Amino acid sequence: MEYKQYQVVFRVEGGEETVIFAAFGESLLEAAKKANVAIDAPCSGMGTCGKCRVKLLSGEVEAEGNRHISWGEYAEGYRLACASRVISELHVLIPQAARTYQDRIKVSGKGAIRERRIFKMLQDELQAMGFWKDSGLELVKVHLKKPDLDDPMADRERLLRALAEQRGGSSPGLSLYALSKLPGVLREADFSCTCVIRREADKRDTVLNIFPAPVPGAPVSGAGAEPVTAGFAIDIGTTTVSILMVDLQTGELLTSGSAGNGQIRYGADVISRIIESARPGGLERMRTGILAECIEPLVQRMCGLTGISPDNIYRVAVAANTTMTHFFMGVPAEHLRLEPYVPAFFETGPFRAVDLGLSVHPAAEVVIAPGIGSYVGGDISAGIFSSMIFKKESLSLFIDLGTNGELALGNSQFLMACACSAGPAFEGGDISCGMRATDGAIEACHVNTDSMEPAIIVIGEIGQKPVGLCGSGLIDLIGELFRCGIINARGKIIREGKRIYRDEWGIPSYVVVFAEDSENGRAISLSEADIDNFIRAKGAIFSAIRTMLAVLDLPVEAIDNVYVAGGIGGGINMKNAIRIGMFPNLGVKKYHYIGNSSMLGAYAMLSSRRACAMVGDISRGMTYLELSSHPGYMDEFVAACFLPHTDGALFKEHE
Amino acid sequence: MEYKQYQVVFRVEGGEETVIFAAFGESLLEAAKKANVAIDAPCSGMGTCGKCRVKLLSGEVEAEGNRHISWGEYAEGYRLACASRVISELHVLIPQAARTYQDRIKVSGKGAIRERRIFKMLQDELQAMGFWKDSGLELVKVHLKKPDLDDPMADRERLLRALAEQRGGSSPGLSLYALSKLPGVLREADFSCTCVIRREADKRDTVLNIFPAPVPGAPVSGAGAEPVTAGFAIDIGTTTVSILMVDLQTGELLTSGSAGNGQIRYGADVISRIIESARPGGLERMRTGILAECIEPLVQRMCGLTGISPDNIYRVAVAANTTMTHFFMGVPAEHLRLEPYVPAFFETGPFRAVDLGLSVHPAAEVVIAPGIGSYVGGDISAGIFSSMIFKKESLSLFIDLGTNGELALGNSQFLMACACSAGPAFEGGDISCGMRATDGAIEACHVNTDSMEPAIIVIGEIGQKPVGLCGSGLIDLIGELFRCGIINARGKIIREGKRIYRDEWGIPSYVVVFAEDSENGRAISLSEADIDNFIRAKGAIFSAIRTMLAVLDLPVEAIDNVYVAGGIGGGINMKNAIRIGMFPNLGVKKYHYIGNSSMLGAYAMLSSRRACAMVGDISRGMTYLELSSHPGYMDEFVAACFLPHTDGALFKEHE
Repeated sequence: MEYKQYQVVFRVEGGEETVIFAAFGESLLEAAKKANVAIDAPCSGMGTCGKCRVKLLSGEVEAEGNRHISWGEYAEGYRLACASRVISELHVLIPQAARTYQDRIKVSGKGAIRERRIFKMLQDELQAMGFWKDSGLELVKVHLKKPDLDDPMADRERLLRALAEQRGGSSPGLSLYALSKLPGVLREADFSCTCVIRREADKRDTVLNIFPAPVPGAPVSGAGAEPVTAGFAIDIGTTTVSILMVDLQTGELLTSGSAGNGQIRYGADVISRIIESARPGGLERMRTGILAECIEPLVQRMCGLTGISPDNIYRVAVAANTTMTHFFMGVPAEHLRLEPYVPAFFETGPFRAVDLGLSVHPAAEVVIAPGIGSYVGGDISAGIFSSMIFKKESLSLFIDLGTNGELALGNSQFLMACACSAGPAFEGGDISCGMRATDGAIEACHVNTDSMEPAIIVIGEIGQKPVGLCGSGLIDLIGELFRCGIINARGKIIREGKRIYRDEWGIPSYVVVFAEDSENGRAISLSEADIDNFIRAKGAIFSAIRTMLAVLDLPVEAIDNVYVAGGIGGGINMKNAIRIGMFPNLGVKKYHYIGNSSMLGAYAMLSSRRACAMVGDISRGMTYLELSSHPGYMDEFVAACFLPHTDGALFKEHE
Repeated sequence: MEYKQYQVVFRVEGGEETVIFAAFGESLLEAAKKANVAIDAPCSGMGTCGKCRVKLLSGEVEAEGNRHISWGEYAEGYRLACASRVISELHVLIPQAARTYQDRIKVSGKGAIRERRIFKMLQDELQAMGFWKDSGLELVKVHLKKPDLDDPMADRERLLRALAEQRGGSSPGLSLYALSKLPGVLREADFSCTCVIRREADKRDTVLNIFPAPVPGAPVSGAGAEPVTAGFAIDIGTTTVSILMVDLQTGELLTSGSAGNGQIRYGADVISRIIESARPGGLERMRTGILAECIEPLVQRMCGLTGISPDNIYRVAVAANTTMTHFFMGVPAEHLRLEPYVPAFFETGPFRAVDLGLSVHPAAEVVIAPGIGSYVGGDISAGIFSSMIFKKESLSLFIDLGTNGELALGNSQFLMACACSAGPAFEGGDISCGMRATDGAIEACHVNTDSMEPAIIVIGEIGQKPVGLCGSGLIDLIGELFRCGIINARGKIIREGKRIYRDEWGIPSYVVVFAEDSENGRAISLSEADIDNFIRAKGAIFSAIRTMLAVLDLPVEAIDNVYVAGGIGGGINMKNAIRIGMFPNLGVKKYHYIGNSSMLGAYAMLSSRRACAMVGDISRGMTYLELSSHPGYMDEFVAACFLPHTDGALFKEHE
């Protein structure tokens, strides 16, 4: 084949242009990846998800027909990046819609932190357990004798001597960072200073930072202000990376932020990312997707917003699933996808920020939530801590609806956990109009039985137009469509009307929002393919619950409480979740939505060293059930791929 | 795969080859930078300028297509270094490369290490003291049970469990570096591996590295070779940075290297560098002058030469004067030059390589020789250790002829140290034809009294032509000129002849080597200005000795032994050094040249943790004499600025 390179200009809608060169026959998605131009590709370029829609402004590509692009749209220049091969110079427009995962780096002020109520509950729990303000940091003011020719002792020795006298015990060590500030700081405030000291469990305490102490009569600005000690709780999800900034002296939330996981361009599921990570430089690309593309900019913006510089961040707690934890640390994860699915580690750390390339205080302690099994990671051990089910006498079921579904069943006596590959449906993946629970997401809806007209609730400011459906919205919509008899037990659309649209192949979908009412001028609709994907997701969850109960030989009624976690929306309409057979039919009162429990657990680990230790105990004490190797699971799954279930008796209405 | 390091041979077109190690997936341009192999990259690796064209002679890279390389060129092996990722052993040709640093940096093989005899003596001393092979590293072979679906324990927990069983005691910790290699290594040799473990004083031992253990019947190459544990002893001089590479299991010297301190462009003396360091970005420039310009390329080349990759370097010992130690660590040093001349620290560390940006094993322990006073630094405490004068009953004088002169006087009961600003004459600075003691330096000479013809000894291979005069050569030459009556007590040239050259201003100099006989076609001569500079340098040393004796109220005869250190040449002709009044007139038998004692001390600290502790004791026990604030010193100095001295009685010939 002739070797040719063509110039390709990517223009992000309402954004910058990037010019690169692509080889003849190279796919647009590949070319964009090389240029680090973000285009969503949850199906990692298989042409199945339809997320990577781009519009040709000039030039031509060799494109395969695809159900995601109508004939009309094709004529307008719309193509799927993954299914388009470069055969000429190109000018390509990337619509915002193709960047819903990527584009949203959001930082919200103190007031705007979601789930504040849930945080308050956890803070109360921590206080009750005596785990409050237990980050191991202390502020110490000290006044030094000034040096002269008769006492030319060096600054470091002078400081440590004074600290030992004042605090008693052996003199602490001095971090290189603090040492490099020492000469300047001491002379700025006449040899009076405030030290940020970390108490160490097994070695000398460490002076992490040093500030000029207030000089009597000096202006309070600059020298004299009380130093702030802050920390980050980081939840690294397969789809979303979320960070909380916390004042470690008060436990107060300072700000929160979130960003789409930059790895999304390598696929929505962990498997395709593990495969990519094994390619040359792949592991580094995975790290970049988390660190450089999410954590780094979030840290910068959150520090900018609060006016607290990154070197005042002394502690970081990270909770993530097993794969993401591996990638975050730059540890190969290939073997996670190969039998016997063994991770490189369950527990690890604590590390220091410099080890992991985090641009906070270089000696900041970084604690990492320990994993339980190949596909039950630190996000679950942290989440289970925040759910507090390990303290209860009564039997609780814990469900985390992330990109995968993880479950735990138990009480203060025992805990069993398992993971089921529900896929990314709950976070909007594999659903043509699916999206994360951010601005523009439909998070709840009601459908009128007769008119089939929907009423929707959209995340965002007043007047925010809808963009797509997030997890909670999907559950609601499918529940409503089923209730109204618009879809049958197989998820097939069985009614007609102006809300029912059939494409050129005759495949029907239910239109939730017409093109003219949506944010980006594209109709928001749910196709039978989408419904089918969702039914398999909810079936995976339900059959996992059934299998765990069977393994433990417990009836479903034995479950006293169900804690549902996951950043899938403001909340879940449990009535509809039960109606579609996603959760057991226990009556809504037993269900509690606890939001992003992984993030809550990370917050607990950030605030308290004892909480860290207890999360470790939880992970070590947990029994891991490998569903894939469990005979009964497949039958349960097949039976659960109906609305609500092949065995209708399981879902007879009550209450 | 990610953990693998590949040997890369860079061949500069028409130049020599440089061998380094690069990580799997690392870009060729980055690898070359590390080795200080110059490749043009005006676009700094963005792949846009096409300047970094290299040619693969063997091996393969993962290369992205690029418009700068035609399909035909690609077939010939041309690649852009910035767009090529290392995936195998490589042999790379670099066309037209800049060679700025090549001359400044020298690495000599094992055989060529100078002062081998002196090292042998120190090694014997260390063995006698029981300080031998005391670096705290151990190699542990361990065989793990392979995981299966019934035992899916993670790699890390599996390894630590086995280590705890085998070694007893609590299980060690695992460095992030070792963790990132773990999955690959375990599966490369059927779950048998060899661990490099560091015993820690105050916390859990650390697994620093892990290698596949020999597999029965497997080829010995790659998997199976016994891991090497190596270390670096680094002497950071104001003029020269020297490094020794040592096998920590045998104590054997592997190779040595040296480079001119890159800070030289900011001035030869520490004061002008301290001033420069206080300017914006100055401290970082000082650090770069040592790290990026000297240590980094030396490390890469010494590793390439020995075939030991940098991540097998587990321990580093650094000895330097107070200013250089501050700069090496990036700690401000301004206050060293302002009364009361207080350094930021005397003792510090140990650190880990990652803290200091050393590109060896990130968790390598870096120990730093502690300082004694503002101008008596770790180079002296380390040097005094290697001289062993702190062990002797009898009184010893220790003299280090560096860019400055530092002295210590004492025995097993007491030690006093001081510094005098001799200037850089002994290392060739301030002397028109002066140079460091490297190839081409005249290190000794004899002058015929009648003909005034010199006989010289030049450092280097047979047939090496002279380039200039190093310290020992200067002492010899001036001693000989004085003995022959060619110069008088004031250092003025008082004879004529074909060796005496007068410039257009009539200022005379003695021509040691005529232009046609020198390496670079320039005559090597000594002007009266040079002699004057040298006399002030030697006067500073002698007057410091006198002042210390006066402070301690001791006669010069009380000195039993004099140990002269400094990298100023293969040795010093003590007879001439006494003749010109540089050293007291004690008879040559009391004088011992001990070479670069700072480097020797660093070597001891590298080899033994107990030696480190003892160097600490020495520095804490030492009395520091500040000459500048001592009244008698100035008069002594003026009196010593003659040949040999104003008080001739001090130098009446004897023996």
